[in-house]
Amino acid sequence: MKKATIGIDIGGTNTVLGIVDMKGNVLTKNSMLTPKHGEIDLFITDLSVVINKMVESVRHSTVEIEITGIGIGAPNGNYYTGNIEYAPNLSFKGVIHFVEKMKTHYPDLKIKLTNDANASAIGEMMYGGAKGMKNFVIFTLGTGVGSGIIVNGNLVYGHEGFAGECGHTVLIPGGRLCGCGVLGHLEAYCSATGMKRTAFELLSYYNASESLLAKISYNELDAKIIYEAALKGDRIALDVFKKTGEWLGQGLANTVHHLSPEAIFLFGGPTVAADLIFNPAKESMEKHLLPFFKNKIKILPSQLKHGDAAIVGASALVFMEQD
Amino acid sequence: MKKATIGIDIGGTNTVLGIVDMKGNVLTKNSMLTPKHGEIDLFITDLSVVINKMVESVRHSTVEIEITGIGIGAPNGNYYTGNIEYAPNLSFKGVIHFVEKMKTHYPDLKIKLTNDANASAIGEMMYGGAKGMKNFVIFTLGTGVGSGIIVNGNLVYGHEGFAGECGHTVLIPGGRLCGCGVLGHLEAYCSATGMKRTAFELLSYYNASESLLAKISYNELDAKIIYEAALKGDRIALDVFKKTGEWLGQGLANTVHHLSPEAIFLFGGPTVAADLIFNPAKESMEKHLLPFFKNKIKILPSQLKHGDAAIVGASALVFMEQD
Repeated sequence: MKKATIGIDIGGTNTVLGIVDMKGNVLTKNSMLTPKHGEIDLFITDLSVVINKMVESVRHSTVEIEITGIGIGAPNGNYYTGNIEYAPNLSFKGVIHFVEKMKTHYPDLKIKLTNDANASAIGEMMYGGAKGMKNFVIFTLGTGVGSGIIVNGNLVYGHEGFAGECGHTVLIPGGRLCGCGVLGHLEAYCSATGMKRTAFELLSYYNASESLLAKISYNELDAKIIYEAALKGDRIALDVFKKTGEWLGQGLANTVHHLSPEAIFLFGGPTVAADLIFNPAKESMEKHLLPFFKNKIKILPSQLKHGDAAIVGASALVFMEQD
Repeated sequence: MKKATIGIDIGGTNTVLGIVDMKGNVLTKNSMLTPKHGEIDLFITDLSVVINKMVESVRHSTVEIEITGIGIGAPNGNYYTGNIEYAPNLSFKGVIHFVEKMKTHYPDLKIKLTNDANASAIGEMMYGGAKGMKNFVIFTLGTGVGSGIIVNGNLVYGHEGFAGECGHTVLIPGGRLCGCGVLGHLEAYCSATGMKRTAFELLSYYNASESLLAKISYNELDAKIIYEAALKGDRIALDVFKKTGEWLGQGLANTVHHLSPEAIFLFGGPTVAADLIFNPAKESMEKHLLPFFKNKIKILPSQLKHGDAAIVGASALVFMEQD
């Protein structure tokens, strides 16, 4: 009998789920649309149908498996309460008792929920580049910027269950409007969306009509297009990565001064650009550090497979016993 | 037999030490000059003479006591190694194996060392306003700004042993030169020294020759004088507290987003000004927070007695078993 867990990642558009074995291998995966309207009970019933199908399919195709639990990553997921609370990108409004509702379908399984970045941190520690590390942080760069903090081998949830929101630390006082409504948060600069905003700021500043990016509308531009332009040597696109890295490095230094981590992992689309973003981030972080931290903290790319990371991280929640 | 511990606080000028019982009462205390030149072995021998005298005096005057250990708070004190490492304000240069050297005098006692702000955090948790709290942070506002972080009831040391340096997070990118050489750190704005710098900035900005502070030289001015002027209604002095609070609140919001604490305690001279600094700090922190943190995190004055806090905090280190 092989043990395995279900990992579920709930996103604004898609919900991705899979069965993950004890080594972090995804045995099978599936996805469904996250509903556009807030029919939470219907969604959970549909979800359980997909889960049951996956379990059946694995039982037919491989050795027998025993499902030991379900781990869920969701925006504003609260580990302590098992609730999804006021998630701006989801159609489920207010406080959703997600774990409680899942329990009605799986009363005998251990069911754990946290936010997606925290799930990535746990995945990184159990199956990724942070194996054996006891103090590290992961930043996930996507539409927003999430983060997960590990101290002494445990995920930090804090008093309210919402620790690790480093994307909402203040980077530039009075600066860009963040999606949360506050001015100057790191997320408004270092997310994929932030990179687009930077590109348009730079186009304006330099009146750079010769840039490849000058041909593209605001709504069409994304981090991938900026990356492709950077590979072609476009000066504005290269500058976007440089500035994003510099801003990120300033934010990482704040995290280092709080937590003295062994390493900071970066995860997500923009990290594909490798040195283009890692080099300025490293340089800027070092510039902002106290002398005794200098040249000690590694900035590393996540070792989780991009497509599977969210599922694998969520599944690993089941193994992390914390209160 | 009453159990007690020795608490030692090593400062740039004075070393203060005392015997502390299990309830946090200081049974006796003493102080000596921290040497101006780096004779570390001589200093430790002198320190042991003072310790032994204190122990004798308590044994004569009260019930019998059993000393169970020695806790030491020192700038750049590293809990993991027991070393004081490159402390800029001390005459001991480089890496000083402080605990190891103390062990030669007290081979049978448990001896623990950390930095002064971490010691305050432990003191606050064991004997102060944080009793029963498992997730909180303390900021100590003095010549510099220190901080100590408690997560799940344990002090956060991090990988290198130097976590909790929130005073060196970036507050204003490219801003004031911090004592550590980096631009824009929180300490350069929110310490007692930072307040003096703010006063002079405001005097210059408003050309405020009518201010009480306009009569005082840079080297004479200190936070106490600013406070007294504020009590008299001096506009510049009042503005110093307002701006200091606003800056501090921005920094505290960053800490909240990292750690989701139950409360943040403020300790040190400038906190005597109470509402003058707490109100703008609270307001500014709230302004920078994600919606789900709003109106949840308390900013509280430390409940440790000012004169005893460092000793009491250091003594409590002995009871904190952590690796």
